[in-house]
Amino acid sequence: MSQPQKPPTATPIQAGILGGSGYTGVELLRLLARHPRAEPVCITSRAHLGQPVADTFPSLRGVLDLRFTEPEKSMLTQCDVVFCAAPNGIAMTHAERLLAAAVKVIDLSADFRLQDARLWEQWYGQRHACPQLLPHAVYGLPEINRQAIRHARLVANPGCYPTAVQLGYLPLLENGLLNLGTTLIADVKSGVSGAGRQASLQTAVAEMADSFKAYAVSGHRHQPEIQQQLQQLAGQPLKLVFTPHLLPTVRGIHATLYGALQAGEVDLQALYQQRFAAEPFVEVLPAGSHPDTRNVRGANTCQLAVHRPQDGDTVVVLAVEDNLVKGAAGQAIQNMNLMFDLPETAGLDSVALIP
Amino acid sequence: MSQPQKPPTATPIQAGILGGSGYTGVELLRLLARHPRAEPVCITSRAHLGQPVADTFPSLRGVLDLRFTEPEKSMLTQCDVVFCAAPNGIAMTHAERLLAAAVKVIDLSADFRLQDARLWEQWYGQRHACPQLLPHAVYGLPEINRQAIRHARLVANPGCYPTAVQLGYLPLLENGLLNLGTTLIADVKSGVSGAGRQASLQTAVAEMADSFKAYAVSGHRHQPEIQQQLQQLAGQPLKLVFTPHLLPTVRGIHATLYGALQAGEVDLQALYQQRFAAEPFVEVLPAGSHPDTRNVRGANTCQLAVHRPQDGDTVVVLAVEDNLVKGAAGQAIQNMNLMFDLPETAGLDSVALIP
Amino acid sequence: MSQPQKPPTATPIQAGILGGSGYTGVELLRLLARHPRAEPVCITSRAHLGQPVADTFPSLRGVLDLRFTEPEKSMLTQCDVVFCAAPNGIAMTHAERLLAAAVKVIDLSADFRLQDARLWEQWYGQRHACPQLLPHAVYGLPEINRQAIRHARLVANPGCYPTAVQLGYLPLLENGLLNLGTTLIADVKSGVSGAGRQASLQTAVAEMADSFKAYAVSGHRHQPEIQQQLQQLAGQPLKLVFTPHLLPTVRGIHATLYGALQAGEVDLQALYQQRFAAEPFVEVLPAGSHPDTRNVRGANTCQLAVHRPQDGDTVVVLAVEDNLVKGAAGQAIQNMNLMFDLPETAGLDSVALIP
Amino acid sequence: MSQPQKPPTATPIQAGILGGSGYTGVELLRLLARHPRAEPVCITSRAHLGQPVADTFPSLRGVLDLRFTEPEKSMLTQCDVVFCAAPNGIAMTHAERLLAAAVKVIDLSADFRLQDARLWEQWYGQRHACPQLLPHAVYGLPEINRQAIRHARLVANPGCYPTAVQLGYLPLLENGLLNLGTTLIADVKSGVSGAGRQASLQTAVAEMADSFKAYAVSGHRHQPEIQQQLQQLAGQPLKLVFTPHLLPTVRGIHATLYGALQAGEVDLQALYQQRFAAEPFVEVLPAGSHPDTRNVRGANTCQLAVHRPQDGDTVVVLAVEDNLVKGAAGQAIQNMNLMFDLPETAGLDSVALIP
Repeated sequence: MSQPQKPPTATPIQAGILGGSGYTGVELLRLLARHPRAEPVCITSRAHLGQPVADTFPSLRGVLDLRFTEPEKSMLTQCDVVFCAAPNGIAMTHAERLLAAAVKVIDLSADFRLQDARLWEQWYGQRHACPQLLPHAVYGLPEINRQAIRHARLVANPGCYPTAVQLGYLPLLENGLLNLGTTLIADVKSGVSGAGRQASLQTAVAEMADSFKAYAVSGHRHQPEIQQQLQQLAGQPLKLVFTPHLLPTVRGIHATLYGALQAGEVDLQALYQQRFAAEPFVEVLPAGSHPDTRNVRGANTCQLAVHRPQDGDTVVVLAVEDNLVKGAAGQAIQNMNLMFDLPETAGLDSVALIP
Repeated sequence: MSQPQKPPTATPIQAGILGGSGYTGVELLRLLARHPRAEPVCITSRAHLGQPVADTFPSLRGVLDLRFTEPEKSMLTQCDVVFCAAPNGIAMTHAERLLAAAVKVIDLSADFRLQDARLWEQWYGQRHACPQLLPHAVYGLPEINRQAIRHARLVANPGCYPTAVQLGYLPLLENGLLNLGTTLIADVKSGVSGAGRQASLQTAVAEMADSFKAYAVSGHRHQPEIQQQLQQLAGQPLKLVFTPHLLPTVRGIHATLYGALQAGEVDLQALYQQRFAAEPFVEVLPAGSHPDTRNVRGANTCQLAVHRPQDGDTVVVLAVEDNLVKGAAGQAIQNMNLMFDLPETAGLDSVALIP
Repeated sequence: MSQPQKPPTATPIQAGILGGSGYTGVELLRLLARHPRAEPVCITSRAHLGQPVADTFPSLRGVLDLRFTEPEKSMLTQCDVVFCAAPNGIAMTHAERLLAAAVKVIDLSADFRLQDARLWEQWYGQRHACPQLLPHAVYGLPEINRQAIRHARLVANPGCYPTAVQLGYLPLLENGLLNLGTTLIADVKSGVSGAGRQASLQTAVAEMADSFKAYAVSGHRHQPEIQQQLQQLAGQPLKLVFTPHLLPTVRGIHATLYGALQAGEVDLQALYQQRFAAEPFVEVLPAGSHPDTRNVRGANTCQLAVHRPQDGDTVVVLAVEDNLVKGAAGQAIQNMNLMFDLPETAGLDSVALIP
Repeated sequence: MSQPQKPPTATPIQAGILGGSGYTGVELLRLLARHPRAEPVCITSRAHLGQPVADTFPSLRGVLDLRFTEPEKSMLTQCDVVFCAAPNGIAMTHAERLLAAAVKVIDLSADFRLQDARLWEQWYGQRHACPQLLPHAVYGLPEINRQAIRHARLVANPGCYPTAVQLGYLPLLENGLLNLGTTLIADVKSGVSGAGRQASLQTAVAEMADSFKAYAVSGHRHQPEIQQQLQQLAGQPLKLVFTPHLLPTVRGIHATLYGALQAGEVDLQALYQQRFAAEPFVEVLPAGSHPDTRNVRGANTCQLAVHRPQDGDTVVVLAVEDNLVKGAAGQAIQNMNLMFDLPETAGLDSVALIP
């Protein structure tokens, strides 16, 4: 039985979605449709202007009666909160207007994740439209930033890869257990929904099914975000090789994280369990476990396991999450809950769908 | 936002699961864990005796603290309702004891689906242990049997194939629109979770992935159940060919149903929409649609579309459901809701998980 | 051990491919690269002009050194045979020029499959550029048309669906065993490679994986081709409902074919075995079998099984083929072998790839 | 067109398969059935005794007429070569008898891969039945051991993981380019056919589809084999972390290999291209490429790419192979070709099957 929750307020939180015809959009709708305290009231998409969302997403037939609207003519500025689920480069052109209208903004794109606008421009290949807001954007990973998020008006929701990598390395870096003279290796695998909802030869079934490959080995846009964040956790520079791979699955990220341990004894299993004991959305599996991406499918959970193969000096951390939930829409709602002083788990209690 | 529901009663419905280590077991747990008025208090499995359910199903870690118990030593008889999720032939040996203890019983196996014990014995290859209860078992398809279910103490939850086939043919047979001199053809495709959770070469990835086949074309156990039910709807005997196929997917049933239309004009689209307008778990798609199994993944919904190719005399109905939800555990909870006078949709409002 | 074949001639058959950047193109290259008597010498693609085929298809790296050329500037007219693997509507603009240059033409598109140009225009939505060649085009299904193919200069290679449906119904229709007053039902399922190599949202992994649906139920372009051919086999008009479905697999077609048997005794298993005993590429499975699409993956074989459920009056034929081999490129090479008086199996002896 | 090969000898090589009902068995049959100079004459399986292989593998219907026989009563000792495709621990009880009968033995299991019997017993949990043969077993990786294989009577065919890892590190270790004070990281992903053909819950579609996980992170049996071989290539001890993962695919291994480069300039792309220029079964992709497992599906090829992310001091090598071909049966036939002085590529020219 679900825990009794505070009865709905007379006026639920009015939530808008900017650019909602992609996978994070439909995932936000799935979660908001059943949120006890918030309500999706507006969703924009130029491509599907005027159409019912259930035409694009028949899974929502009978669930929601929204239609896609135009960003400019929408009631976004009358919302309490707006989720930006558009491609990179859009949120930064809307944020000021929304904030000026006292709307809280949670950006699921990369626009406000890097503190350094020049670094952003280098990796994203365009001019940053709104660098003046960067100092005010709070990086929305609650497990490291909970207090700041509570008071934020603009949250930069982390990337899917960075969430898994940060949560995996967190206890090691916070406690200075890694030899940072040695390069960290993050070998990470993602389901294809991370590539977005788009017509593309590369992500066609006949191109990807029953196959597997790495991509962007020479450099992926999540690299600087991960580097920035890990260095912040470590309190010092570090070297990182981040290798993304494309899984022939729809959802799910599996990070296999390697680091060289400093000399000295440490009970890694106890360390991880203690660090995350109070976290509602991080589960440390029993010693010797291997987390499976399906066990978090549809849930806002990150499952972790920590190994030390043959008692050597290399630690191997395994971290899984659903890239569309803890890696995107679920985390965004977790941030909304914090920003509106709701229970952090509100609307996020759905259980992973297996098999 | 989810609709406000009645506040939880002081004493929620105590639910037990007999034989819960399979896929319908974990699906019942997933749904009951978040049910506003019921609580899973007991689950049995000889094979996993004493183990936490989260060891078998890591998706439930942090969600439920139950352990598997032995049927005989369990508190099943102290429950308000027991779901039998065991293989065929088990429920019929427990039902009388449970009913005698004033426990309501919802059987997800085939034990009480056929009214004729001899027919059952012929198809299931064993003696029926409890034929005296057959006249008291109510066939648990709410869309045709809602009133009887409300007063039932023993519900025979329909098979996954029969649910899709009955819902698809329902408006046609109720209204006498088919020429029953011609054989009905039900060409049905199922994901592999319908075969249960078991070690089996046939259902191994390396045997099934990227492949497709029919099976049991000469006769499948759901045939007599479908035949019994369709004849009841039609009020007369009919001929049916039922051809099951195995999809290389996990969840989902797609029924493609063919029938010869009687002469005369009829607006099939309107007929279907009207018949199911008040049904919370049946969605008739707009004319010309093709339902996709993924659009009901994890939801208790059946989506239907009706076609009349090239305006000929053959009607083609397309019906999809999630075999583990509307085809099993979800429907069982829908039946429980009716039996305990709860809102029929209680605990069943989770939205389909796409992509 | 493979059977010894005639030693290669001094001058192998020079084969060209018009429009070769799709899946039938690469499949033709795969087969021609190892053909004992033919040689791929030219392949055209405007989109990939000048590029090595191994850049588009890395599976061919180290196998072939061809580059894509422009149709007009290519040496197509100097070839012995040209396979048209371009989309519908292209072959009909090249055929006359090629035939005039004494090149034999095997068209894998639909341009020459329908004898009636108006019917073609109706289904394909464009003017037929070359109706005068239609009477000279030979329908390239060797199992019914072997002699005509041997002498053909222009072969219309059958569609993937039509091949499976025709081979499945063949013995029944040739022998007048079906009651054609009743509609034939062809419920057919195809892997996604049949949709071609293209960027498309519909065929993306995140849209199709773990899912299944019907499409074009109201009318598919292969319908008139199948109808034309079945009527020819039956020697009379018949009614047909053809329902295509999209499998979440790459290759493979599975046809489930229904028909009402005429009164009277017939040994269907013997009938099928005798009809296909001499056919090198049709295997009739033992009674009670269910063919699996993977068992013909990569091979030029159609596997069949025939059932009569519960000894009723409906016959159910199951037919599987690889849509890219027996349903396209393999059949095209089988036709080439016949047209050049080679052993019909030359270059087509590769064994299906399982698992 | 395939290259003309020497005409078949009057007496082709008679090949036997010990324990042939698994995936390496059927793959050996697929390849041997079309080998120009060898012939499969005998295959054993206690479980399928007396049955036609086409009953177990319908893909071979019409291709081969063999039946499974009992090892003891079989004609294995009359063969020219026997492939041991049985589980670990079987080949070592047959090898002496076969060698004594002048039969050449190629063992696809692990029995003769480790030179140290005690190490073998430690990892494989049983007594080695035949340690006296270990010094005579030649490790069958032609790219490093070609001459020894030509004269071998007993070949230990490498494991699937070790083949990919060795080929990937080969040019770096041979040339002393890695700093071996730092641990090598081999993050490797395998399709499920590597787990063999068996009824198992873990490899069921409903357990694995659309999911991904690591396994045996604390220690996998291929670890000592890889360590032994890499150390031999390096001529010194080294530290290795080997992390296997299970892909939801049937075939294919993808190794992502990390190492710390020694100081100094080196053109890695040129190094790899030169090292493998003469190798018929290793393809070095153009700089910047990402090999895809599907591009070697069914082929005896290993495709490699070498990267140096952001010009740092870490080299990342990507290596793909088909675990059943270059990782098992294909490599075994490559070894047979060497042992019998045939062209090394004989019977191994089939092109990868994409899509």
